[in-house]
Amino acid sequence: MSSAKKLVRVLEGGAESPPPVWLMRQAGRYLPEYRALREKAGSFWGMALNPDFAAEVTIQPVRRFGFDAAILFSDILTVPEALGRKVIFTAGEGPSMTPVTDVAGFDSDPARWESYFEPVYAALRQTRAGLDREGFGDTALLGFAGAPWTLATYLAAGAGGDEQKAARLWAYRDPQGFARLLDILADCVVFHLVRQLRAGADAVQIFDSWASGLPPPLFEQLVIAPTRKIVAAVRAEVPGARIIGFPRAATLAGYEAYVRATGVDAVSLDTAAPLDWAGETLACTLQGNLDPIALVAGGMALDRAVGDILEAMAGKPFIFNLGHGILQETPIAHVEQLLKRVRG
Amino acid sequence: MSSAKKLVRVLEGGAESPPPVWLMRQAGRYLPEYRALREKAGSFWGMALNPDFAAEVTIQPVRRFGFDAAILFSDILTVPEALGRKVIFTAGEGPSMTPVTDVAGFDSDPARWESYFEPVYAALRQTRAGLDREGFGDTALLGFAGAPWTLATYLAAGAGGDEQKAARLWAYRDPQGFARLLDILADCVVFHLVRQLRAGADAVQIFDSWASGLPPPLFEQLVIAPTRKIVAAVRAEVPGARIIGFPRAATLAGYEAYVRATGVDAVSLDTAAPLDWAGETLACTLQGNLDPIALVAGGMALDRAVGDILEAMAGKPFIFNLGHGILQETPIAHVEQLLKRVRG
Repeated sequence: MSSAKKLVRVLEGGAESPPPVWLMRQAGRYLPEYRALREKAGSFWGMALNPDFAAEVTIQPVRRFGFDAAILFSDILTVPEALGRKVIFTAGEGPSMTPVTDVAGFDSDPARWESYFEPVYAALRQTRAGLDREGFGDTALLGFAGAPWTLATYLAAGAGGDEQKAARLWAYRDPQGFARLLDILADCVVFHLVRQLRAGADAVQIFDSWASGLPPPLFEQLVIAPTRKIVAAVRAEVPGARIIGFPRAATLAGYEAYVRATGVDAVSLDTAAPLDWAGETLACTLQGNLDPIALVAGGMALDRAVGDILEAMAGKPFIFNLGHGILQETPIAHVEQLLKRVRG
Repeated sequence: MSSAKKLVRVLEGGAESPPPVWLMRQAGRYLPEYRALREKAGSFWGMALNPDFAAEVTIQPVRRFGFDAAILFSDILTVPEALGRKVIFTAGEGPSMTPVTDVAGFDSDPARWESYFEPVYAALRQTRAGLDREGFGDTALLGFAGAPWTLATYLAAGAGGDEQKAARLWAYRDPQGFARLLDILADCVVFHLVRQLRAGADAVQIFDSWASGLPPPLFEQLVIAPTRKIVAAVRAEVPGARIIGFPRAATLAGYEAYVRATGVDAVSLDTAAPLDWAGETLACTLQGNLDPIALVAGGMALDRAVGDILEAMAGKPFIFNLGHGILQETPIAHVEQLLKRVRG
């Protein structure tokens, strides 16, 4: 029996017309109701680790736009926090932490991970209950985690942004030590994804946001290998777990190898990936890849960009999304225009 | 008769063993002799627009390492300056300028461009004379310019770095106005490349440093079309002009379309581009693509990365280079290690 949830059907290989649609970072600052709640919560962690707040902001964009999926409001840096690395969010800046050069002092006790993550799982349960109560029973609920490589770039640099340099240098100079870092990150990611699925997530997305620019042997070693391990380990604990991978701005050969080797059900494509190529080459469900800047621009450019994507993906298992997170300055009217165009 | 300059022979389609080698940004802060001269010159423009200083720092890395090419010390933002847009370099920060929203007030008088650029051409002539005098007669001399799209990202944002957002938004919202900006930039780039070739450059490189992330129709319109026009216009004035293109971090389909459509003699590949794919697919000379961070790391990782490149490119028309500019913290001993490995 096929699922009542359109997004789940597409992850299982079906094609839907119109395709299911959600937007990365859809619970965010472009929404006045998000900004109001963010102010009330005070700090970032005060919102993300409070199940009432987190569930509410997760539901907000579904309530306003009727997206086909709700993605839990949380952050990829929960995993370093669970491992005992304190992450500080400062207003107007990115997250920061003390850079690490080895895994000494990482908290590897799953009981401690469990207690750190518990508010996240509570938020998922509350979100599912809230969606059902508000008439969004067919809306899929997504969990997520950062991939080990992307998490490692933050841990090595102590800062967010495109700070791959410290991590790449570490990987070149001390491959064994860096492999230990990826291993403990992967263990914690598996733990977290499994429990998100058990708490009611219909699928999970693995964000490898800094997968770009890696020479092919490093991409294989740092992006593909840990993800393959995670997918297998999650499915060993949750048979049939649905997993979306997002090795952002991988090369086309990189996307191809990633899909082939990791076993993800779907791959999320960045803005530059050509959909005609993807449709012919990647043997899985595709997600993406509207330019978030086209969504800020609106008008004819937005209609044309959306139309191009719909045309390229017609009849294929496809989830409409952005190629990267929605930008804060995105007008709400443009999201409405997008949905009108996608849903005819 | 084939050229005495190895790099020229490779640009003409020959394979050389060992391949010619130079490094992007090889005249730079990692060299103590550069830092000494930079301090003496005072400001960035005081160095770049002084032919004595510019020629000297251009020759420095050839004198130290015997690279097969000298690339003129200059900056891609000379073109906006020639067009009357003042660019300020502040120590420790990137360049900045007043952002533009149209081309009103751009200086379109070639006589003014000529007088602005004259010190650059003088520096090229002095560099050639200096190389010949110092026994580097077989060292190729390279000129360069930024591509219109990359220059436009700076002009639209008023700042350097990966600031594509303002330019992409402009391109979506006002395609005609943005096309006018690209046109005047292309005219000035053609002017500048032609005169660099006449001043003694053996070849020129077109840097499209911010070509990544563009949806395929924008890549075609903003990267490929202006470059195709520039290549044709330069060759109309300088028949047989040798041109290297660098659409940095284009997708693999993007590189393929760029090589096919623009007619460049060589394409420079970023760190992530797989050389086996490139060797099979791109019908031109290839340049690249060592990870600059591997060069900082040194040791076995560097030897392995260099070895992989040499193996993949053996017997092909190939110029050994980095996938991006050399980093300031690169140890000189690692450059020596690289050259030893490349030259056997």
